[in-house]
Amino acid sequence: MQRITLQHTDAFWRKGGPIFFYTGNEGPITSIWNEIGFMKDLTAKFEALIVFAEHRYYGESLPFGENTFARENMGLLTVEQALADYAILLSNLTAVFCQDPDVCPVIAFGGSYGGVLSTFLRLKYPNLVAGALASSANVYMSAGLTPGNELFQDVTEDFRRYNPRCPDRVREGFTEMERLSGQGKQGLLEVSSRMNLCSPLQDRADLVNMYRWVREAFTVLAMEDLPYSISNGPSLPAYPVNASCDLLLKATDGIEGIIQAVGMLYNFTSDLTCFDLHQDFVPCADPTGCSLMPGAKAWDYQTCTEISLLESTNNVTDMFPPDAFTEETRVAHCWERWGVTPRPGWLATQFWGKDLSPSSNIIFSNGDLDPWRRGGVLQNVSSSIVAMVIEGGAHMMDLRVPNPADPQSVIRVRQQEADLIGQWIREATNQRE
Amino acid sequence: MQRITLQHTDAFWRKGGPIFFYTGNEGPITSIWNEIGFMKDLTAKFEALIVFAEHRYYGESLPFGENTFARENMGLLTVEQALADYAILLSNLTAVFCQDPDVCPVIAFGGSYGGVLSTFLRLKYPNLVAGALASSANVYMSAGLTPGNELFQDVTEDFRRYNPRCPDRVREGFTEMERLSGQGKQGLLEVSSRMNLCSPLQDRADLVNMYRWVREAFTVLAMEDLPYSISNGPSLPAYPVNASCDLLLKATDGIEGIIQAVGMLYNFTSDLTCFDLHQDFVPCADPTGCSLMPGAKAWDYQTCTEISLLESTNNVTDMFPPDAFTEETRVAHCWERWGVTPRPGWLATQFWGKDLSPSSNIIFSNGDLDPWRRGGVLQNVSSSIVAMVIEGGAHMMDLRVPNPADPQSVIRVRQQEADLIGQWIREATNQRE
Repeated sequence: MQRITLQHTDAFWRKGGPIFFYTGNEGPITSIWNEIGFMKDLTAKFEALIVFAEHRYYGESLPFGENTFARENMGLLTVEQALADYAILLSNLTAVFCQDPDVCPVIAFGGSYGGVLSTFLRLKYPNLVAGALASSANVYMSAGLTPGNELFQDVTEDFRRYNPRCPDRVREGFTEMERLSGQGKQGLLEVSSRMNLCSPLQDRADLVNMYRWVREAFTVLAMEDLPYSISNGPSLPAYPVNASCDLLLKATDGIEGIIQAVGMLYNFTSDLTCFDLHQDFVPCADPTGCSLMPGAKAWDYQTCTEISLLESTNNVTDMFPPDAFTEETRVAHCWERWGVTPRPGWLATQFWGKDLSPSSNIIFSNGDLDPWRRGGVLQNVSSSIVAMVIEGGAHMMDLRVPNPADPQSVIRVRQQEADLIGQWIREATNQRE
Repeated sequence: MQRITLQHTDAFWRKGGPIFFYTGNEGPITSIWNEIGFMKDLTAKFEALIVFAEHRYYGESLPFGENTFARENMGLLTVEQALADYAILLSNLTAVFCQDPDVCPVIAFGGSYGGVLSTFLRLKYPNLVAGALASSANVYMSAGLTPGNELFQDVTEDFRRYNPRCPDRVREGFTEMERLSGQGKQGLLEVSSRMNLCSPLQDRADLVNMYRWVREAFTVLAMEDLPYSISNGPSLPAYPVNASCDLLLKATDGIEGIIQAVGMLYNFTSDLTCFDLHQDFVPCADPTGCSLMPGAKAWDYQTCTEISLLESTNNVTDMFPPDAFTEETRVAHCWERWGVTPRPGWLATQFWGKDLSPSSNIIFSNGDLDPWRRGGVLQNVSSSIVAMVIEGGAHMMDLRVPNPADPQSVIRVRQQEADLIGQWIREATNQRE
């Protein structure tokens, strides 16, 4: 096994002080490192060592080099193995840097799937981590314990909340596309042309894929609905839901509106002459799609084996075309793509399902604008496993670099998080001394 | 994966009542089923369903049939995989038999390595087991966290406690063997002859192996030092330490004494005309030896990978010839036999080392005559992780079928165990209702 890549800084570390450990998720650790500003902000306060660990099979942590994504090499990609990497790393780290009488309580941090991992690390390795801050961690959804229609319903709700005419406009666009595509080849060509696609849609499967590509754009706009502009990854304006909704309503019709909204994400550089679906969106076992990046293959494999993301649309509780993404959809794709069948139920068995109460010291934070939030823990589980809701908050908002435009809600939640983390550190220190 | 074999009875089960689950260890589940009488005794009291699960790679639970023990098929034999088998089994069992409003709290039971497994199951799957009774569970030793000279020192101590002249006699025998073997081939022949071996010792390696074979006999006599005779496995008289010690002292010299003592175990049927070392004792990564039984191969592999049993002798704190069983000894054997290198430290990282306090509801019971006891937990870890010592108790004594000759100590410990188990069941039931 090749080593996993790390990002770290000891600029503020007082020897013996805490270790803030980010449980890397599905992407290069360098880009995660740039996104997670809050940990660095906390570091000076707690004189902590920061370590970000890259998840195996992502970024540069490729166990079989350029052959990593060959079918026969994928078996070592599991949640358990990723956690074991982190456990061994932490065990060695504390053995080297924190010999008695140093204490170095470790606090795990993670956002989204990284938050799921920081939770699981605390559940399974309380000997190594004193507590976990799990931001936007869809622990229940990942384990297949949610109904499966909450994600896109809540994307829709984010747009409706700004202006109820927006979801209507999106529906109108899809209805028109559906009408046109019902007219055969010529209709598909017209949809392709009006959607400004680089390659015309060939068949119904292409069309469904394009619908998902559109849906994913709205999903990202809802996830990243922050009060300030961002440029880590695609550049987005402040409040992109509102901004794209305004474009939708200004457009001449539904299809034109959808193009405008989708372009905010996929053409954020404003230099595309047409849209290349396959550049942005590769169908996979995640209904929100994968990409052409190498890491997307790993994510496809993970959603084909342990991680369940069976989110569907029905055009009734959401604004998107009906698209049932079922266990059967998943099985067919995974067998063809990887020669594997999913293991439904396993993650719930292994990581305690909805009964997290035997653990302790976990913060589950969620923004109430984040469409993923209902996949996670929204209510206190016990006195020390607490849920925090960020009013007006987006996906992983608390973990981002603090910004002057931050609402009071996220400032308050970050303060509560810092207080609890401080308490965990004190308790762990007292226990050891 | 082939199914794992079960033994079970619902003779006393009240639907919705508790499930008593034995985490099978290194052997056929049928023989373990016959040995663990206490669980059946408890069953009527608690109206429980009893399920004994066989450990993968033992008994009939061979994932690759007759090719199971080929090197390339051994990788699926890990503690984690065995626990996952039990977790999936329990998850399915409760889903089928205990749908709401039934509760069915599961209590894990295990002795020796099985006790280690029942502990680990409670640590890692508190969602599935409400508590664990771990009898003679050498959790610390298995994880490589003990000094490594306690086992044979305590075997020696058991004999010394009955009569200090016994260890002297054993030492005298070994000294004489060592003196004879120093005289070359002829001396080895004389040792072989006086020890009544079927095949003469060829070299020093043979001699060392014979010493270990002797040492193992004394170890078993000490482990099984019960106040009544047993016949599950080898037949032994009541108090075999005392009985063999008497034989040692009656013998004409040390070597003759050792033969008499060893014969109590290896020739319990009294029909052997000579001793075949290789029948009783196969050198392996467990210094107490393996056997010719198929399961012994699996145990060798487990002690070659995750489970650490580096117990040595020095002839100072114990009565046996000096024999340092080091990590190097282990590495050399494991590489040659299986093409693997051990993973020292991994079990301690994975199963919390000596910091079990984040868990709860575990009983660690140990007999104070059991030479394995210092490999385990002898003091309370917390208010709900408690150590119980059985005065005058042997290995796994509390789990055995109650016997009229049982001392008050084991009767008292069994009562305390039943009380705590009852409390765990009530708590789990109240939580669910």
